[in-house]
Amino acid sequence: MDTRDTTMDFDPKFDTSGLLTAVVTDIGTGDLLMVAHMNAEAILLTRETGEAHFWSRSRGRIWKKGESSGNVLRVEEMRVDCDQDALWLRARPAGPACHTGATSCFFRLVGPQRLEKARLPSGSD
Amino acid sequence: MDTRDTTMDFDPKFDTSGLLTAVVTDIGTGDLLMVAHMNAEAILLTRETGEAHFWSRSRGRIWKKGESSGNVLRVEEMRVDCDQDALWLRARPAGPACHTGATSCFFRLVGPQRLEKARLPSGSD
Repeated sequence: MDTRDTTMDFDPKFDTSGLLTAVVTDIGTGDLLMVAHMNAEAILLTRETGEAHFWSRSRGRIWKKGESSGNVLRVEEMRVDCDQDALWLRARPAGPACHTGATSCFFRLVGPQRLEKARLPSGSD
Repeated sequence: MDTRDTTMDFDPKFDTSGLLTAVVTDIGTGDLLMVAHMNAEAILLTRETGEAHFWSRSRGRIWKKGESSGNVLRVEEMRVDCDQDALWLRARPAGPACHTGATSCFFRLVGPQRLEKARLPSGSD
Protein backbone atom coordinates (compact mmCIF):
# COMPACT_ATOMS: atom_id res chain seq x y z
CA MET A 1 0.00 0.00 0.00
CA ASP A 2 1.31 3.46 -0.94
CA THR A 3 2.25 5.67 2.04
CA ARG A 4 0.00 8.33 0.52
CA ASP A 5 -2.93 5.98 1.19
CA THR A 6 -2.28 5.77 4.92
CA THR A 7 -0.60 9.05 5.97
CA MET A 8 -2.85 11.51 7.74
CA ASP A 9 -1.14 14.31 5.76
CA PHE A 10 -2.90 15.97 2.87
CA ASP A 11 -0.66 15.06 -0.05
CA PRO A 12 -2.83 15.55 -3.15
CA LYS A 13 -2.05 13.56 -6.27
CA PHE A 14 -2.87 16.03 -9.03
CA ASP A 15 -3.25 14.59 -12.53
CA THR A 16 -1.05 15.71 -15.43
CA SER A 17 -3.28 18.79 -15.82
CA GLY A 18 -2.84 19.68 -12.14
CA LEU A 19 -6.39 18.62 -11.22
CA LEU A 20 -8.23 16.55 -8.65
CA THR A 21 -11.80 15.27 -9.03
CA ALA A 22 -14.17 17.10 -6.68
CA VAL A 23 -17.47 15.57 -5.61
CA VAL A 24 -20.05 17.79 -3.92
CA THR A 25 -22.87 16.52 -1.73
CA ASP A 26 -25.59 18.47 0.05
CA ILE A 27 -24.74 18.33 3.76
CA GLY A 28 -28.43 18.63 4.57
CA THR A 29 -29.98 15.98 2.34
CA GLY A 30 -26.88 13.88 1.56
CA ASP A 31 -27.66 14.02 -2.17
CA LEU A 32 -24.89 14.08 -4.72
CA LEU A 33 -25.05 17.52 -6.33
CA MET A 34 -22.21 17.71 -8.85
CA VAL A 35 -18.78 16.47 -9.91
CA ALA A 36 -16.12 18.94 -11.06
CA HIS A 37 -12.36 19.52 -10.92
CA MET A 38 -10.14 21.54 -8.62
CA ASN A 39 -6.55 22.67 -8.99
CA ALA A 40 -4.43 23.95 -6.09
CA GLU A 41 -5.71 27.50 -6.54
CA ALA A 42 -9.35 26.38 -6.46
CA ILE A 43 -8.71 24.49 -3.22
CA LEU A 44 -7.10 27.53 -1.62
CA LEU A 45 -9.83 29.93 -2.80
CA THR A 46 -12.46 27.56 -1.46
CA ARG A 47 -10.76 27.49 1.92
CA GLU A 48 -10.28 31.26 2.01
CA THR A 49 -13.82 32.16 1.02
CA GLY A 50 -15.78 29.15 2.29
CA GLU A 51 -17.45 28.95 -1.13
CA ALA A 52 -16.68 26.24 -3.69
CA HIS A 53 -14.32 27.19 -6.50
CA PHE A 54 -13.41 24.85 -9.35
CA TRP A 55 -11.23 24.72 -12.43
CA SER A 56 -13.27 24.77 -15.60
CA ARG A 57 -11.61 22.52 -18.16
CA SER A 58 -13.84 23.81 -20.97
CA ARG A 59 -13.25 27.48 -20.18
CA GLY A 60 -9.66 27.06 -18.97
CA ARG A 61 -10.13 29.22 -15.89
CA ILE A 62 -10.98 29.29 -12.20
CA TRP A 63 -14.69 29.45 -11.62
CA LYS A 64 -16.71 30.13 -8.51
CA LYS A 65 -19.82 27.99 -8.51
CA GLY A 66 -22.74 30.42 -8.55
CA GLU A 67 -20.69 33.40 -9.74
CA SER A 68 -23.38 34.23 -12.29
CA SER A 69 -26.45 32.39 -10.94
CA GLY A 70 -25.92 33.25 -7.29
CA ASN A 71 -26.27 29.56 -6.44
CA VAL A 72 -23.05 29.31 -4.45
CA LEU A 73 -22.03 26.28 -2.44
CA ARG A 74 -21.05 26.98 1.17
CA VAL A 75 -18.43 24.31 1.95
CA GLU A 76 -18.67 22.98 5.50
CA GLU A 77 -16.30 20.04 5.23
CA MET A 78 -13.58 18.81 2.87
CA ARG A 79 -12.32 15.23 2.74
CA VAL A 80 -9.75 13.45 0.57
CA ASP A 81 -9.85 9.83 -0.59
CA CYS A 82 -7.29 7.09 0.02
CA ASP A 83 -5.07 7.72 -3.01
CA GLN A 84 -5.62 11.48 -2.72
CA ASP A 85 -6.80 12.17 -6.24
CA ALA A 86 -10.39 13.01 -5.27
CA LEU A 87 -12.00 15.45 -2.83
CA TRP A 88 -15.39 15.29 -1.17
CA LEU A 89 -16.96 18.66 -0.41
CA ARG A 90 -19.95 18.62 1.91
CA ALA A 91 -21.76 21.86 1.20
CA ARG A 92 -24.89 23.87 1.78
CA PRO A 93 -26.27 24.98 -1.61
CA ALA A 94 -27.85 28.44 -1.96
CA GLY A 95 -30.07 27.15 -4.78
CA PRO A 96 -30.21 24.53 -7.54
CA ALA A 97 -26.70 23.15 -8.13
CA CYS A 98 -27.18 22.36 -11.81
CA HIS A 99 -27.01 24.89 -14.64
CA THR A 100 -30.17 23.25 -16.04
CA GLY A 101 -32.08 24.43 -12.98
CA ALA A 102 -32.24 20.98 -11.40
CA THR A 103 -31.41 20.62 -7.70
CA SER A 104 -28.68 18.11 -8.59
CA CYS A 105 -26.75 17.55 -11.82
CA PHE A 106 -27.68 13.87 -11.46
CA PHE A 107 -31.36 14.34 -12.34
CA ARG A 108 -31.44 11.47 -14.88
CA LEU A 109 -31.86 7.85 -13.93
CA VAL A 110 -30.03 5.37 -16.20
CA GLY A 111 -32.33 2.35 -16.20
CA PRO A 112 -32.22 -0.76 -18.40
CA GLN A 113 -34.24 0.80 -21.25
CA ARG A 114 -32.17 3.95 -21.43
CA LEU A 115 -29.00 1.88 -21.26
CA GLU A 116 -30.17 -0.45 -24.03
CA LYS A 117 -31.04 2.49 -26.26
CA ALA A 118 -27.58 4.03 -25.76
CA ARG A 119 -25.92 1.14 -27.68
CA LEU A 120 -22.59 1.46 -25.89
CA PRO A 121 -19.50 0.34 -27.78
CA SER A 122 -18.57 -3.18 -26.69
CA GLY A 123 -15.02 -4.02 -25.66
CA SER A 124 -14.48 -5.93 -28.89
CA ASP A 125 -15.59 -3.14 -31.22
CA MET B 1 -27.02 24.63 -23.44
CA ASP B 2 -25.83 21.42 -25.13
CA THR B 3 -28.66 19.05 -26.13
CA ARG B 4 -26.77 16.34 -24.23
CA ASP B 5 -27.51 18.31 -21.05
CA THR B 6 -31.26 18.22 -21.51
CA THR B 7 -32.10 15.06 -23.47
CA MET B 8 -33.52 12.22 -21.39
CA ASP B 9 -31.36 9.80 -23.45
CA PHE B 10 -28.24 8.28 -21.98
CA ASP B 11 -25.54 9.67 -24.27
CA PRO B 12 -22.31 9.28 -22.28
CA LYS B 13 -19.42 11.65 -23.00
CA PHE B 14 -16.40 9.38 -22.55
CA ASP B 15 -13.04 11.10 -22.19
CA THR B 16 -10.17 10.47 -24.61
CA SER B 17 -9.37 7.26 -22.69
CA GLY B 18 -12.97 6.07 -23.06
CA LEU B 19 -13.80 6.70 -19.40
CA LEU B 20 -16.45 8.33 -17.26
CA THR B 21 -16.01 9.30 -13.60
CA ALA B 22 -18.05 7.04 -11.31
CA VAL B 23 -19.09 8.16 -7.84
CA VAL B 24 -20.43 5.54 -5.43
CA THR B 25 -22.57 6.32 -2.40
CA ASP B 26 -24.01 3.96 0.19
CA ILE B 27 -27.75 3.82 -0.48
CA GLY B 28 -28.33 3.10 3.21
CA THR B 29 -26.27 5.81 4.90
CA GLY B 30 -25.87 8.25 2.00
CA ASP B 31 -22.10 8.40 2.59
CA LEU B 32 -19.71 8.86 -0.29
CA LEU B 33 -17.78 5.59 -0.53
CA MET B 34 -15.42 5.92 -3.49
CA VAL B 35 -14.66 7.56 -6.82
CA ALA B 36 -13.43 5.46 -9.74
CA HIS B 37 -13.71 5.22 -13.53
CA MET B 38 -15.93 3.20 -15.84
CA ASN B 39 -15.64 2.45 -19.53
CA ALA B 40 -18.51 1.11 -21.64
CA GLU B 41 -17.66 -2.50 -20.72
CA ALA B 42 -17.66 -1.73 -16.98
CA ILE B 43 -21.10 -0.11 -17.31
CA LEU B 44 -22.49 -3.13 -19.15
CA LEU B 45 -20.95 -5.64 -16.71
CA THR B 46 -22.37 -3.65 -13.81
CA ARG B 47 -25.82 -3.75 -15.36
CA GLU B 48 -25.59 -7.48 -16.19
CA THR B 49 -24.34 -8.61 -12.78
CA GLY B 50 -25.77 -5.91 -10.50
CA GLU B 51 -22.30 -5.54 -8.97
CA ALA B 52 -20.05 -2.52 -9.58
CA HIS B 53 -17.28 -2.99 -12.15
CA PHE B 54 -14.72 -0.31 -12.95
CA TRP B 55 -11.78 0.32 -15.25
CA SER B 56 -8.52 0.39 -13.35
CA ARG B 57 -6.26 3.00 -14.89
CA SER B 58 -3.22 1.79 -12.92
CA ARG B 59 -3.70 -1.86 -13.84
CA GLY B 60 -5.15 -1.22 -17.31
CA ARG B 61 -7.98 -3.71 -16.92
CA ILE B 62 -11.61 -4.21 -15.92
CA TRP B 63 -11.96 -4.76 -12.23
CA LYS B 64 -14.90 -5.94 -10.16
CA LYS B 65 -14.94 -4.09 -6.84
CA GLY B 66 -14.51 -6.78 -4.18
CA GLU B 67 -13.16 -9.43 -6.58
CA SER B 68 -10.41 -10.26 -4.07
CA SER B 69 -11.76 -8.83 -0.79
CA GLY B 70 -15.34 -9.99 -1.24
CA ASN B 71 -16.50 -6.45 -0.50
CA VAL B 72 -18.66 -6.11 -3.58
CA LEU B 73 -21.00 -3.20 -4.22
CA ARG B 74 -24.58 -4.15 -5.11
CA VAL B 75 -25.74 -1.34 -7.42
CA GLU B 76 -29.38 -0.39 -6.89
CA GLU B 77 -29.51 2.77 -8.97
CA MET B 78 -27.42 4.48 -11.65
CA ARG B 79 -27.71 8.16 -12.56
CA VAL B 80 -25.84 10.37 -15.02
CA ASP B 81 -25.00 14.06 -14.63
CA CYS B 82 -26.00 16.95 -16.87
CA ASP B 83 -23.04 16.85 -19.28
CA GLN B 84 -22.95 13.03 -19.11
CA ASP B 85 -19.32 12.57 -18.13
CA ALA B 86 -20.03 11.30 -14.60
CA LEU B 87 -22.15 8.51 -13.15
CA TRP B 88 -23.64 8.20 -9.70
CA LEU B 89 -24.01 4.64 -8.43
CA ARG B 90 -26.15 4.16 -5.36
CA ALA B 91 -25.05 0.85 -3.91
CA ARG B 92 -25.27 -1.49 -0.96
CA PRO B 93 -21.72 -2.39 0.15
CA ALA B 94 -20.96 -5.93 1.38
CA GLY B 95 -18.16 -4.57 3.58
CA PRO B 96 -15.65 -1.72 3.85
CA ALA B 97 -15.39 0.01 0.48
CA CYS B 98 -11.77 1.13 0.88
CA HIS B 99 -8.73 -1.10 0.33
CA THR B 100 -7.33 0.39 3.57
CA GLY B 101 -10.15 -1.29 5.49
CA ALA B 102 -12.03 1.98 6.05
CA THR B 103 -15.78 2.05 5.43
CA SER B 104 -15.29 4.88 2.93
CA CYS B 105 -12.23 5.92 0.93
CA PHE B 106 -12.88 9.46 2.24
CA PHE B 107 -11.76 8.75 5.80
CA ARG B 108 -9.52 11.83 6.04
CA LEU B 109 -10.77 15.28 6.85
CA VAL B 110 -8.84 18.13 5.19
CA GLY B 111 -8.99 20.91 7.77
CA PRO B 112 -7.09 24.22 7.88
CA GLN B 113 -4.00 22.74 9.60
CA ARG B 114 -3.65 19.83 7.23
CA LEU B 115 -4.17 22.17 4.29
CA GLU B 116 -1.56 24.63 5.56
CA LYS B 117 0.96 21.84 6.02
CA ALA B 118 0.42 20.61 2.46
CA ARG B 119 1.96 23.80 1.00
CA LEU B 120 0.02 23.64 -2.25
CA PRO B 121 1.62 25.21 -5.31
CA SER B 122 0.15 28.68 -5.83
CA GLY B 123 -1.12 29.80 -9.22
CA SER B 124 1.84 32.15 -9.62
CA ASP B 125 4.56 29.54 -8.91
